[in-house]
Amino acid sequence: MSRLRIGLAQVNTTVGDFAANVKLMSGMLMDARDLGVDVVAFPELAVCGYPPEDLLLRPSFAEANRAAVEELAAETHGLTAIVGFAERELDMHNAAAVLHDGEWVATYRKQRLPNYGVFDELRYFQPGRGEVCLHRGDARIGISICEDIWLPDGPVARLGRAGVDLVVNINASPYHRSKWRERHRMLATRASDYGVVLAYVNLVGGQDELVFDGDSMVFGPDGEVLAEAKLFREDLLVCDVELEQVFRARLHDPRRRHARSGEPRTLHRVVLSPIEPRPEPPPLPATHPVVHDDTAETYEALVLGTRDYMRKNGFEHVVIGLSGGIDSSLVAAVAVDALGADRVTGVSLPSRYSSEGSRSDAQELADLLGIRMLTIPIEPVFQAMLDTLAPVLGDGAHGVTEENLQSRIRGNPLMALSNRFGWLLLTTGNKSEVATGYATLYGDMAGGFAVLKDVPKTMVYELSVYRNARDGKPVIPQSVIDKPPSAELRPDQKDTDSLPPYDILDPILERYVEDDWSVRELVAAGHD
Amino acid sequence: MSRLRIGLAQVNTTVGDFAANVKLMSGMLMDARDLGVDVVAFPELAVCGYPPEDLLLRPSFAEANRAAVEELAAETHGLTAIVGFAERELDMHNAAAVLHDGEWVATYRKQRLPNYGVFDELRYFQPGRGEVCLHRGDARIGISICEDIWLPDGPVARLGRAGVDLVVNINASPYHRSKWRERHRMLATRASDYGVVLAYVNLVGGQDELVFDGDSMVFGPDGEVLAEAKLFREDLLVCDVELEQVFRARLHDPRRRHARSGEPRTLHRVVLSPIEPRPEPPPLPATHPVVHDDTAETYEALVLGTRDYMRKNGFEHVVIGLSGGIDSSLVAAVAVDALGADRVTGVSLPSRYSSEGSRSDAQELADLLGIRMLTIPIEPVFQAMLDTLAPVLGDGAHGVTEENLQSRIRGNPLMALSNRFGWLLLTTGNKSEVATGYATLYGDMAGGFAVLKDVPKTMVYELSVYRNARDGKPVIPQSVIDKPPSAELRPDQKDTDSLPPYDILDPILERYVEDDWSVRELVAAGHD
Repeated sequence: MSRLRIGLAQVNTTVGDFAANVKLMSGMLMDARDLGVDVVAFPELAVCGYPPEDLLLRPSFAEANRAAVEELAAETHGLTAIVGFAERELDMHNAAAVLHDGEWVATYRKQRLPNYGVFDELRYFQPGRGEVCLHRGDARIGISICEDIWLPDGPVARLGRAGVDLVVNINASPYHRSKWRERHRMLATRASDYGVVLAYVNLVGGQDELVFDGDSMVFGPDGEVLAEAKLFREDLLVCDVELEQVFRARLHDPRRRHARSGEPRTLHRVVLSPIEPRPEPPPLPATHPVVHDDTAETYEALVLGTRDYMRKNGFEHVVIGLSGGIDSSLVAAVAVDALGADRVTGVSLPSRYSSEGSRSDAQELADLLGIRMLTIPIEPVFQAMLDTLAPVLGDGAHGVTEENLQSRIRGNPLMALSNRFGWLLLTTGNKSEVATGYATLYGDMAGGFAVLKDVPKTMVYELSVYRNARDGKPVIPQSVIDKPPSAELRPDQKDTDSLPPYDILDPILERYVEDDWSVRELVAAGHD
Repeated sequence: MSRLRIGLAQVNTTVGDFAANVKLMSGMLMDARDLGVDVVAFPELAVCGYPPEDLLLRPSFAEANRAAVEELAAETHGLTAIVGFAERELDMHNAAAVLHDGEWVATYRKQRLPNYGVFDELRYFQPGRGEVCLHRGDARIGISICEDIWLPDGPVARLGRAGVDLVVNINASPYHRSKWRERHRMLATRASDYGVVLAYVNLVGGQDELVFDGDSMVFGPDGEVLAEAKLFREDLLVCDVELEQVFRARLHDPRRRHARSGEPRTLHRVVLSPIEPRPEPPPLPATHPVVHDDTAETYEALVLGTRDYMRKNGFEHVVIGLSGGIDSSLVAAVAVDALGADRVTGVSLPSRYSSEGSRSDAQELADLLGIRMLTIPIEPVFQAMLDTLAPVLGDGAHGVTEENLQSRIRGNPLMALSNRFGWLLLTTGNKSEVATGYATLYGDMAGGFAVLKDVPKTMVYELSVYRNARDGKPVIPQSVIDKPPSAELRPDQKDTDSLPPYDILDPILERYVEDDWSVRELVAAGHD
């Protein structure tokens, strides 16, 4: 066997839903077998979903992982599968099971456990010790998990020194805007450093507050991309590796021969039993290169995150308060792309301060998106609340208290619709508002899923313009994009009454919130 | 100097308030000097407060730590201080500065970093390498930080082998009910294992969701308690250590002599410069042993947690919705004990379903506590809301939707009072309700601080009975304790309509939530 056909199973599994995950992964195994795949790899912790968080502390959860891997093992006749799961031995490990021709033959344990940003792996796992190298006919296949490859020394360097042909790297790597550039560069460098083929498989799908973009890839020994999976959807990426070419590439490069000096003592070799000869596999269709576009990918991440939050939590329908402003308009567009127009209900909740333009913009949006629209005027409740509170608040001029009252009155009917009909309320606030507190707790901040929680206001505009241009058929009225932002909780209110313009505010927030700059540093950099 | 006078400065510092923390700690240094203390120890991360969490990722926060330690160093003329702070060197460390006679002379770095439960230290810190032993005249003093002592091997074992006389252990160890028993047992064992005096100093005070109980202690070389600080309040515990006696105790015990075999190569010795002779220090007053009582301590933890949340976040007054039920009654009693009756306002928000008994119970509670009581009937707003929603909800029988509507209508006036007057709304829900979802999001779950969030319903009763008996003057009407629990959101509603009785529910919740039992295990243990 001088050619190895590898498959990368870019699956969208659900945290804790072992039955559904096994079914999904079994289907992928069947597809891989039909395509003549020799070795198929699934993402990190694919069996239990990612991030499992404190479920990992439940012994019954670990037991369900083991049972699921055993079920999958029985489905691997005729091929080899590498499957991410949570292993409970003397301790817990983030592990990869090697399933071969119907048997569970080996387990690799992740050595580098990330514990920053969204990762808390040291809370749950013990690091593994030692690498695993599979001998599959002529092929030498090293296994690694996610962070194992992000550092220049460590497990993948040891696999490289040992002279493997192929490094499989299984991942649960969340989407960040533009992160793909860094990821491509690092992976290409690792492949080229050791003259190996590098097969990177990543989860896809939304889970809680994370979105995984997939983007599984195979790199050749010069760092070139041999194949790249679809973004933001499930895929089985299949790619042929010519082992002789890989070996020759290493042999001809003195840098790589030097790097290969000495097998690490931590390496564990697993010789896989021969598999019955099969008919020549079908030739692979030509693939098209993936064109990356940051705006389009951000929009797709929001759509997938919303869709999967609904599906994985058992919701069928969403309700959105539509003010006629740009945030709720973009959320409605995302929701329709995620779920279809018949599963989205918009609600207009006009008050004495709602402009005629806002009401008609909300209606026009609903018409363009083809969604149902309810109207619930809040004036009678607002007036009753003001009368009720007059004895305790006094009757001075309206201020922030009365603004928040309106926002909270709006939250109540939206939650009542959620209660009565089982609809999920989508929150419409953006990251700039949340960061500055320009929002009402229990009012417009109410809801089960905040679509724009990580999208600053300037990006809300960018995404709205993108969505309108995408299909040549605008869905957000142009007047929504053009008018100055307003909460409409008092006469002639503008966001800029309380906040700097968003093109000034957003860069400050990014440096302060994301990059941990001090106020002194911000001022020194020229921010006012 | 064959006698060493040690001081344990049990302080209540605030996360991020460096100016206040330095002032507080400087005052303790002055008191210690006045009492003739030779070595005074402050808790873990006392300089920056605990838990600093992601503030540690801000370079300006690390810089403020360093500046604060330098300020404190200048206040240490005539004595030695061990001060917990966050150190930024090539990486971040959880560290103890040794300040001696006006100078910063050494730094110890915590070696064992906990990363479970409420601790995330591996997210922020690198572990230190090596122990620090201070030579202060004849005394040999080893330094350790919190988790360093919880494991039988490791830093404190190495200090013991090196033959130190005194181990100082600085802590930020949060209160759990009954945890003191385990803590006493472990510390007594460590002191006795190595034949050393063990000085354990802990933070005190509430910070965010944690409460620190203090309970600083000094153990003798046989594991006996030599002195114990006050619980739940600041204290400077002073204790004399007779060095000759400690040395003799070690010399006479073959087990300890054996344990002392061999100085670890990781030990760093710091010889402190001699200090000007001072007049004989005043004799210490006799101390009284601390009597532990789990119920009283739980109540004190709630009082201190509430008081410090207010103070550290700049609130002066609280508002509480008083239903006449036991949860809000206990919260009101805690609030009055924390803040005084003149800083607590109760609000009755009767609806069509509120019983006459509940209204009079709420009023009687307010009278017994001496707090101001407002009444805001929600009927007009509720009716206006029902009328407004009739077209979209239909006019079927009232159900959970209408129950939640009432609860959310109550949340709105309470938040309006918070908005208008700057009062903090205290949430009254207990842990049993929150765990089962028997509560209304944005309704009775609204508020800035949830006093009973970690108190199951059966313990709510226990604490109420305790508080009524404590001073011989009941503050919670007996009828509140006697009547069956009800949300009063529909006619004749009882909690047991939806939930098992709490004496059956609470043990299940504890095993499921706290101990991670599976449903199968619960059933096997006899739960229905």
